[in-house]
Amino acid sequence: MNKQLNIGIIGYKFMGRAHSNAWLKAPLFFDIPAHPVLKVACGRQQESVSDFAQKWGWEETETDWRRLIERPDIDVIDIALPQNLHYEIALAAAKAGKHIFCEKPLSMSSRQAEEMLKVCEDNKVVHYLNHNYRRVPAVAHAKKMLEDGKIGRIFHWRCCYQQDWIVDPEFPLTWQLKKEVAQAGPQWDLNSHAVDLAHFLVGDISTVSCLTSNFITERPIANENSSGNLSAEALGSEKGEVTVEDAALMMVRFKNGAVGSFEATRFATGRKNRLSFEIYGSKGSLVFDMEKMNELQYFSLADPEGDQGFRTILVTESAHPYVGNWWPAGHIIGYEHAFVHAVVDFVKAVEEKTPISPDFSDGLKIMQVLEAGLQSAESGRQILL
Amino acid sequence: MNKQLNIGIIGYKFMGRAHSNAWLKAPLFFDIPAHPVLKVACGRQQESVSDFAQKWGWEETETDWRRLIERPDIDVIDIALPQNLHYEIALAAAKAGKHIFCEKPLSMSSRQAEEMLKVCEDNKVVHYLNHNYRRVPAVAHAKKMLEDGKIGRIFHWRCCYQQDWIVDPEFPLTWQLKKEVAQAGPQWDLNSHAVDLAHFLVGDISTVSCLTSNFITERPIANENSSGNLSAEALGSEKGEVTVEDAALMMVRFKNGAVGSFEATRFATGRKNRLSFEIYGSKGSLVFDMEKMNELQYFSLADPEGDQGFRTILVTESAHPYVGNWWPAGHIIGYEHAFVHAVVDFVKAVEEKTPISPDFSDGLKIMQVLEAGLQSAESGRQILL
Amino acid sequence: MNKQLNIGIIGYKFMGRAHSNAWLKAPLFFDIPAHPVLKVACGRQQESVSDFAQKWGWEETETDWRRLIERPDIDVIDIALPQNLHYEIALAAAKAGKHIFCEKPLSMSSRQAEEMLKVCEDNKVVHYLNHNYRRVPAVAHAKKMLEDGKIGRIFHWRCCYQQDWIVDPEFPLTWQLKKEVAQAGPQWDLNSHAVDLAHFLVGDISTVSCLTSNFITERPIANENSSGNLSAEALGSEKGEVTVEDAALMMVRFKNGAVGSFEATRFATGRKNRLSFEIYGSKGSLVFDMEKMNELQYFSLADPEGDQGFRTILVTESAHPYVGNWWPAGHIIGYEHAFVHAVVDFVKAVEEKTPISPDFSDGLKIMQVLEAGLQSAESGRQILL
Amino acid sequence: MNKQLNIGIIGYKFMGRAHSNAWLKAPLFFDIPAHPVLKVACGRQQESVSDFAQKWGWEETETDWRRLIERPDIDVIDIALPQNLHYEIALAAAKAGKHIFCEKPLSMSSRQAEEMLKVCEDNKVVHYLNHNYRRVPAVAHAKKMLEDGKIGRIFHWRCCYQQDWIVDPEFPLTWQLKKEVAQAGPQWDLNSHAVDLAHFLVGDISTVSCLTSNFITERPIANENSSGNLSAEALGSEKGEVTVEDAALMMVRFKNGAVGSFEATRFATGRKNRLSFEIYGSKGSLVFDMEKMNELQYFSLADPEGDQGFRTILVTESAHPYVGNWWPAGHIIGYEHAFVHAVVDFVKAVEEKTPISPDFSDGLKIMQVLEAGLQSAESGRQILL
Repeated sequence: MNKQLNIGIIGYKFMGRAHSNAWLKAPLFFDIPAHPVLKVACGRQQESVSDFAQKWGWEETETDWRRLIERPDIDVIDIALPQNLHYEIALAAAKAGKHIFCEKPLSMSSRQAEEMLKVCEDNKVVHYLNHNYRRVPAVAHAKKMLEDGKIGRIFHWRCCYQQDWIVDPEFPLTWQLKKEVAQAGPQWDLNSHAVDLAHFLVGDISTVSCLTSNFITERPIANENSSGNLSAEALGSEKGEVTVEDAALMMVRFKNGAVGSFEATRFATGRKNRLSFEIYGSKGSLVFDMEKMNELQYFSLADPEGDQGFRTILVTESAHPYVGNWWPAGHIIGYEHAFVHAVVDFVKAVEEKTPISPDFSDGLKIMQVLEAGLQSAESGRQILL
Repeated sequence: MNKQLNIGIIGYKFMGRAHSNAWLKAPLFFDIPAHPVLKVACGRQQESVSDFAQKWGWEETETDWRRLIERPDIDVIDIALPQNLHYEIALAAAKAGKHIFCEKPLSMSSRQAEEMLKVCEDNKVVHYLNHNYRRVPAVAHAKKMLEDGKIGRIFHWRCCYQQDWIVDPEFPLTWQLKKEVAQAGPQWDLNSHAVDLAHFLVGDISTVSCLTSNFITERPIANENSSGNLSAEALGSEKGEVTVEDAALMMVRFKNGAVGSFEATRFATGRKNRLSFEIYGSKGSLVFDMEKMNELQYFSLADPEGDQGFRTILVTESAHPYVGNWWPAGHIIGYEHAFVHAVVDFVKAVEEKTPISPDFSDGLKIMQVLEAGLQSAESGRQILL
Repeated sequence: MNKQLNIGIIGYKFMGRAHSNAWLKAPLFFDIPAHPVLKVACGRQQESVSDFAQKWGWEETETDWRRLIERPDIDVIDIALPQNLHYEIALAAAKAGKHIFCEKPLSMSSRQAEEMLKVCEDNKVVHYLNHNYRRVPAVAHAKKMLEDGKIGRIFHWRCCYQQDWIVDPEFPLTWQLKKEVAQAGPQWDLNSHAVDLAHFLVGDISTVSCLTSNFITERPIANENSSGNLSAEALGSEKGEVTVEDAALMMVRFKNGAVGSFEATRFATGRKNRLSFEIYGSKGSLVFDMEKMNELQYFSLADPEGDQGFRTILVTESAHPYVGNWWPAGHIIGYEHAFVHAVVDFVKAVEEKTPISPDFSDGLKIMQVLEAGLQSAESGRQILL
Repeated sequence: MNKQLNIGIIGYKFMGRAHSNAWLKAPLFFDIPAHPVLKVACGRQQESVSDFAQKWGWEETETDWRRLIERPDIDVIDIALPQNLHYEIALAAAKAGKHIFCEKPLSMSSRQAEEMLKVCEDNKVVHYLNHNYRRVPAVAHAKKMLEDGKIGRIFHWRCCYQQDWIVDPEFPLTWQLKKEVAQAGPQWDLNSHAVDLAHFLVGDISTVSCLTSNFITERPIANENSSGNLSAEALGSEKGEVTVEDAALMMVRFKNGAVGSFEATRFATGRKNRLSFEIYGSKGSLVFDMEKMNELQYFSLADPEGDQGFRTILVTESAHPYVGNWWPAGHIIGYEHAFVHAVVDFVKAVEEKTPISPDFSDGLKIMQVLEAGLQSAESGRQILL
């Protein structure tokens, strides 16, 4: 592997770390057709970005993302920023002919997404949208089982994405709680993942009904200057308005006749990062929970009568997608590994022109569902897509 | 306990057996203020009802429920029949001054329910509606924890009631699949239970959105003549139309600000009788699954930091409701025991004038929610209650 | 079913209730060749035994078990007493030609057991030993799977029987803690069940190593006069010596080459009645836990590669042993139901001369293993059986 | 962090990869007082070691470990080899003043271990023995809970370490199955981990009884030349003798009065890497399973009556040891992360002279227990330590 792929990353917080780790580890555990070079890290604050670059081995730094994109030595722009910044950067990157590895959710709106997709296609760049959960081995294995016909015709999709990090009313008003940065609350942050998985595993959605709710309407102003992760500190006693929803529920019909439900919330006390789905079909069923991400539950009507039951597949064997490259069977992997798998497939897509998904066309469809959801929540009516 | 309470039961199939067992066992394990006497069993077919009466020890039989109700020696009418027969019988029983132990769902409509309630109140009879799950010890304990403030303000109710007994398209068109007998499918049969639990544990519902679906629209005509339970045999190759829904999903707002979801289906392959709910509140959370009915999961923010987690309470101790009357701790009970608990409380209600719930007023509220659901599914609009 | 079988029961506490319930319920849910008549209840205290008889419907009472055995109208003697009383009663009952339904553990010693067996055989009476767990549907289904070859050659038996009811040092010195009544602690009470299951599911044992321990050596004297169950009250500040072990561990070899372990204790804080076993074989594995007694876990190497895992069979279907006679699939049963199944098989054994196990020959083998265990614990040496 | 620590690693297979990954990742996620430099990788086959070095970024290679140890620029010798090679290398490294990071099990015998410990102490080098499971966050948290008195006096330790990779009789005779390389089977490989955890969490052991077994006595000769992991290929039809045990069970007494059991096997069909322990104490209990390594089950008698139960702590919060340095709460980590934690503590031990355990003194104690086990299995007698 002599070929190299020069990466420029924008953003150095939670996702900056997760992406850096993935660029570093991919070639250690997988055979990939080019070696990712951690070339440039970009962030607005020179000191912070320098610290980050030094720790993770990024060779250089920039403080202006436009300068980064202008650099001819950069092959890939990795957008590891909140969603309000994706649109402008992605357009510029695509126009400069850079391949794009973009954090989710794709954008602030379907209108933005549409344009981002078009410009990428026009400029023939690879555009990958990092809904990383598709590459959790248990999820990838579920996909394969569905494709192999083991579940049959799907009747039900039942999904929740539950967190609890803002149950405390004194948790401050971080950027995730402001419409101007985040566009929406869990509908954007969490349901974007859930809808992506539904598209991936079940199919396209035809109708959406949605209900949103706010449980805490005002919160202390946040001090996010130095924060590198979700837990920001409150600045003082001053309060500001929460301008996104706290919870978003959806009921949908799929084009193939299945029905589905989504439930995204930051108020499920005790659930830290529980993305769980259940799929019920005419031949079998599947259940997954991200908090037990190495396990996939499977029920098969093909099992002998009397011996049927939900079995827990420990998805750590060489017969399973991705995971055989890590450790022997039974040695589980963690959250960050799905990012590594994404990098592996992304590098192949760039070097070998293999298709990769989800991409911006998937992101556009997700945006359309999420927007329909907000519209339904507003109007109290079912929306046809 | 010298006092006796004479019971007349109408119906001798699945619920006839479950109720008979409960009348028999209640005085063996609980101190109750009157002894239930299994006086008369009533059913249209003399031979079947005689067999049933002999097996279970009912002293006499009747084939006309009107004659049963006219008998002055009967104190209680136990209605163990499908819902299309509840209305007429309950009215007659109440007018005759009989106390009523009525199987669920209450009726075919809220209009019927309203009249049933009024006539019972006018005639001052005890009217109990057998949503038996309230008296599963784990559910009763959950109620107590909520009342004791251990969960705090409720944010989320997430509930499903999943079965899979009609996944096979060759399963015949039994009465449960015909609108004229059943009024609706899982919306009536299963969601009536789920809504009752939501009312019991969370509170009243203010808005309903609903989505229903049919997966199999025609089925072989059933031969139910001799069938004593759910699994009827198909009569031949002739098919008839399924006139109720196969699945019913709802999203609701509660008057107290919580949001909730319901998902009732007979197409959840692998789920036999999974009535599961999750309650998330500001101080803690609760999770229950009827297939593991002796367990209650509880998360408490009052636990020390670092030591928090969902704990599985094995609800079999003398500190728990009802269950201490059975066996030592750790010795679990089964499905039928909740019926015994219902009889215990019903006898007390009759003899000691203690209130009992759910009663027909609860049943009326359930009917209103379920009807609003069907109306929403039809119109695609959220319904305000 | 016109035939009747007259039962005389001796003992009216925990097991008296469990057995009475079983005699009553068996004909309600199963077709059996004779109807058990609850004829005579026998106990030393007239008032207590009368209360018991009235509650459960025993027609008459006796206070001297010898008089009971002399009665010509009694067909079956049900011994629901502590183990120190089994020997003398069983001998007398067998000599009087009565069939015997005997609570476990069989006796105080293998010498007693040997004699009990011989006298029963000489007098050609049915002798059933109530290791009720064999008739939990999940256990009976496990047996069938083993017989069908689904597990293959057995390598491992791993079993524990854990309770925690004497962790509190102030728990009083009840009869279970006195050698003169109980012979031993969990080695007798709990490991008798565990060894019976091992014999049933794996086979005969050839060597035993054992280790016992006492954690609390003195306890308050108990006041057991009025106690009907395990939780006796302490009498005062006076203390007495605990003369049985608190925990007993065993390692064994089976004649078929498998190895096994047992761990019985009353000091497993948080475990109320956890009898759990794991069986690992060349084709598959089984796991059971009595606290989840409706479930059986099964791993099969015959499942497709990549889709293997421990599946949880909810043993509530008509394809499973016994349980189809109760309720529809997914409706679980409880602790007492296994006693009903025992009565069903016992009545068949008496009426139709079908063999029934475990019987006193099984009990004798259990005694030999348990005695070898105590001998090993004393000597620190492996004992060959 | 300008300080550097030069590492020389010997071995490049399963453990070579796991250690390399740990040296690389430690400084990315943790603040450590020196930066580990991947200086030299050593292995007998030049081509293989070169490939390995290039992939993982080891600057140089050696094919003779003696030359590596002679190099003055090396600070740390990382022994990532089978146990038959530890003794000679560790002695040489210690005499050369190198700090040692040694894979487990420590040695072939307690005699070797004793000498290794003495030479390390004489030469004042840091000697770390990589029983990595101590640094799984859930295990480290369990240790803290025990130290904080949350479990109270310990009554029971119940542990198993189950794998199933040699159930197939055609699995070849790899080095792990030969006494001259491995010294023993699961008694060495698996029980060394289990005994280390018992020492760590419960305390020292005073008596040992052990039982071992061989299920498959002959296997195809293995072709291990090119094998980088456990699954070697069979060479042909020729067979060789398995000279280590297939399963090893132990019962022990601890010096503090607790009793314990161990069960190590490679024949537990369906268990891939299940290292599970249960600890029962006077105030609470703990349960852990390596296949669910992010979870710790905890039962507390301090919980309110009626609300007690085993709670599942998802050990991914900043309040937990190590894990806060990775990702937000609820984002789980994997098998390899414990190696990173070991490196973090090892670097601190080297740079800041903080104590680190387990070290060779712990390894010596483990060897003594394991040897006593083999001796007991041979003699059928309990061994006093």
